[in-house]
Amino acid sequence: MPKSVLFNESDVLRKVTQLFWSKGYNGTSMQDLVDISGLNRSSIYNSFGDKFNLYEKSLKYYQQLQQEKLTQYMGSNKSPRRQIVALFEAVAEEIINQNNANGCFMSNCTTELANSNPRIHDFLVSNKKTMTDLFKGLILQARREGEIDVRKDADELASYLFSSIQGLRVTGMLDDKKSDIQGIVKQVLSVL
Amino acid sequence: MPKSVLFNESDVLRKVTQLFWSKGYNGTSMQDLVDISGLNRSSIYNSFGDKFNLYEKSLKYYQQLQQEKLTQYMGSNKSPRRQIVALFEAVAEEIINQNNANGCFMSNCTTELANSNPRIHDFLVSNKKTMTDLFKGLILQARREGEIDVRKDADELASYLFSSIQGLRVTGMLDDKKSDIQGIVKQVLSVL
Repeated sequence: MPKSVLFNESDVLRKVTQLFWSKGYNGTSMQDLVDISGLNRSSIYNSFGDKFNLYEKSLKYYQQLQQEKLTQYMGSNKSPRRQIVALFEAVAEEIINQNNANGCFMSNCTTELANSNPRIHDFLVSNKKTMTDLFKGLILQARREGEIDVRKDADELASYLFSSIQGLRVTGMLDDKKSDIQGIVKQVLSVL
Repeated sequence: MPKSVLFNESDVLRKVTQLFWSKGYNGTSMQDLVDISGLNRSSIYNSFGDKFNLYEKSLKYYQQLQQEKLTQYMGSNKSPRRQIVALFEAVAEEIINQNNANGCFMSNCTTELANSNPRIHDFLVSNKKTMTDLFKGLILQARREGEIDVRKDADELASYLFSSIQGLRVTGMLDDKKSDIQGIVKQVLSVL
């Protein structure tokens, strides 16, 4: 009878996600996954599939965590414009407090695999749509409530905010100086 | 007597740079480098050093090409503000014309290696400084010439423009729709 494997799937996924986020898909070896998970190769294959399956599961796990963080950062008792501001301020805080050494897993995944893997590309495009839809909804609401000029184009602003977050995350891997990062955020938000 | 190796170093560097840019450092194997260069392993080691040395040479080669492109895009007969606008318009054109599938080699390198390799990190920080110094010089000149409000903070704007280019390059790997990309650029430049 094969030895049964007992482990906490969510705990393994958390550790593996941290590893892929830090080292990238190609920079992570099967041995790295064995080392961090404490599982042997066959347990990994049986429970999660191959390295690529595990990477995809990690991306989705990260996406869910980000959604929860987003909700927490933005809060629901703030005005729509204040929710956007709060998100950017929280990202700036993460960078300044040096919690951004690995950047954003989604941006890292984009630059590493979007050009070569159609499945990953489609996942990232769908994640982008979730983010821009969220921004667009807030902008439309802010326009209705007189917080943002009604002549501002909600689609343009939503894409701009998405792009600005990517830029901030990449820049934050090279610069965590408070005045620089807060200056960028101030300029980004001056458009609203 | 060992067979002498004759090849065009610049031609090899061009091909290898394209490969590292497209596949990343960890995604590129020594065999990939042999295949694309047409050289055998010992010729590569003798002429360029190991994979990491070759990667660093490729980064510097790309940086030089980017500087030449930048000069061409911005032109010297334009006003300082127009030079900044021309650079963003040219990046947008590259994305829209689908010449951006691989994004920007510098951004890709940042997300892949800035957190783990101090030499690469320092190189990227120095490249960022070159870019922000260029932007700052143009902004100060534009302020003197009355093209940009004299109360605008030149350091903040320079960091913001650098960050916006990174964001545009990453976003452009997921979205090359003309209206989206031009909309982002329009919003970025509205800050000036």
